[in-house]
Amino acid sequence: MLFHWFYGGKGESRSALVMKNLIKERSSQAVSCAYLKGASYEVGSLRPISEIEELKKDTNTLDTLLTLGLETFSLSTKKPVELAKSSIEKTVDRAGVDRSQIDEVIYATSGYAMSGKPWCPVHYSKELNSLLLSLNLSHCTGMGVSFSQCVNIIAAIELAVGLVESGRKKNVLVFSADCLSPHESRLVDNGISVISDAAASCIVSSEQNNGYFIEAINKNIDWGLLEIDSASDFSTFFKRTAEGISGAVQQLNQSLGRVGSDYEQLLTNSVNLSILRIISRQTKVDVDRIYSKNISRFAHCDCSDILINLADYELEKEGEKSDPVLLLASGPYVWGAMSLVRMC
Amino acid sequence: MLFHWFYGGKGESRSALVMKNLIKERSSQAVSCAYLKGASYEVGSLRPISEIEELKKDTNTLDTLLTLGLETFSLSTKKPVELAKSSIEKTVDRAGVDRSQIDEVIYATSGYAMSGKPWCPVHYSKELNSLLLSLNLSHCTGMGVSFSQCVNIIAAIELAVGLVESGRKKNVLVFSADCLSPHESRLVDNGISVISDAAASCIVSSEQNNGYFIEAINKNIDWGLLEIDSASDFSTFFKRTAEGISGAVQQLNQSLGRVGSDYEQLLTNSVNLSILRIISRQTKVDVDRIYSKNISRFAHCDCSDILINLADYELEKEGEKSDPVLLLASGPYVWGAMSLVRMC
Repeated sequence: MLFHWFYGGKGESRSALVMKNLIKERSSQAVSCAYLKGASYEVGSLRPISEIEELKKDTNTLDTLLTLGLETFSLSTKKPVELAKSSIEKTVDRAGVDRSQIDEVIYATSGYAMSGKPWCPVHYSKELNSLLLSLNLSHCTGMGVSFSQCVNIIAAIELAVGLVESGRKKNVLVFSADCLSPHESRLVDNGISVISDAAASCIVSSEQNNGYFIEAINKNIDWGLLEIDSASDFSTFFKRTAEGISGAVQQLNQSLGRVGSDYEQLLTNSVNLSILRIISRQTKVDVDRIYSKNISRFAHCDCSDILINLADYELEKEGEKSDPVLLLASGPYVWGAMSLVRMC
Repeated sequence: MLFHWFYGGKGESRSALVMKNLIKERSSQAVSCAYLKGASYEVGSLRPISEIEELKKDTNTLDTLLTLGLETFSLSTKKPVELAKSSIEKTVDRAGVDRSQIDEVIYATSGYAMSGKPWCPVHYSKELNSLLLSLNLSHCTGMGVSFSQCVNIIAAIELAVGLVESGRKKNVLVFSADCLSPHESRLVDNGISVISDAAASCIVSSEQNNGYFIEAINKNIDWGLLEIDSASDFSTFFKRTAEGISGAVQQLNQSLGRVGSDYEQLLTNSVNLSILRIISRQTKVDVDRIYSKNISRFAHCDCSDILINLADYELEKEGEKSDPVLLLASGPYVWGAMSLVRMC
């Protein structure tokens, strides 16, 4: 790298030296590895899906959902940040990270209308402030990440990984929290699932203890799907969704030299069992290896699903070594895949 | 680093090998430097601030603002993403980066109610989709960053820097775009400035050509300020705001071994001239070195201010070497500082 620098005086010379040293120092610094730890979650009260008003009027869809594995969903009277608080407390405990060592907070959410109020930056800043204050994390600024819907959590984790790998941050708390307002529909189009209220959280850390090594993250997008009406053109919608899923995972696997059967478990959204079979086909991960225990309990907790499933999977596996785990978050036009390996 | 890995069979052994090689490879990879290039912006039509309805009714505030350097503000009939489109086209041209080489897009905004409609994820995804499609950038997923108000752009740039320094991305397009709805107030509390509609953009790149080396970024937060009513307790508000500004810059300078007089220019928010003098005192940068030309033209363009000022400063300086430039974005309880040095 060549620098043609102008040394016009004493001040400039010092500044140029500072910059040169910085570039030298940074270029000789190794990229850190990033580890995900302390995956946890909180849900509201679990109610039978038959209590959802829309399903009372549409017993066909209700029957289909019940046949395909759905049973209860999470209904919260608490605000998203209140659910987040419980989840984050569990995360901090499980991760064994001192709160003073958490140096950034990223909040993944689609729910800017979550209190039934229109979006107002100051209102949400105050909610985030109360949350961080109550958690002894008010030294963190906090950032909101949105626009990728059910894949927001993957987007947030990828941004956290960048901060950690580059050495800018040591421990980034990532959390998701979404609750529906009473007037919002709880049905996912095409009988895919029912939407629940939930929060989930984890820490992306430069320290490996108690963590999963984050091998790779990959997002795949098909913006064109936003323009397709799935009701009137289901076959196109279905085909491109399937391609979106396989694209996200294939690109990830190619970067790692992996195949679907290398993964001990696939943790994905809690959607109906028929969709899980499609996901199995597209990812080439055997359907028996897809974590499905939470479908009947929690249904689809927006972008929190994959951390919820990771938290429960981790509890079952505690202390055991494992092969890589594949996480897949599917949105309506964007998909995010992440490969993790548990460190022992 | 020690790995106690379980080799239970052929599959596990291959997976363990993949992971070990990855960790080895990543740990031997140097952190990239990150460069900011192509700062550009777009505003609406410039109207006298005396046309603002609230100021017609409050001639005292109007007179104060006019005395303290304000003249016109930007009023846009276009949507924020339309302003963003023009700005991004200029950024791509100025940066000399091929669009196919842009691999991520981050959108900094506080304006989720920007069309006067309540926040709806699908609506905003569609707007972002149209924007990226019209720019030949639909291979990018796009993420929204919020919660830091006028400091959103610093938060977005820091996230982009993490992605670039870690080697995950080569060129991240960062843009900000905010327009007020007709019913929203254009007055910043305490006669600080008037709010304008604008968009701004830049590319954070791993390639140095045409760029500024991003030396350091630092955010400082005082969540407690959110709870202070500046009208009834102005002295506390003022004191803590001043401390917030000096804290953000002092921490940055300490990490670089710099002092205020090392900076050739301070690019900050377009607020009234009296506030600029306070900023000068708190940052220890001479008031003559604060870029103030856009105060009378544009007033306060939310988080776009600092990129707007950088774009115009860059035009004036084109081809010339420079000492470091300090960028400071001030929000109501959070401050972001960034040090840049122009590469030649």
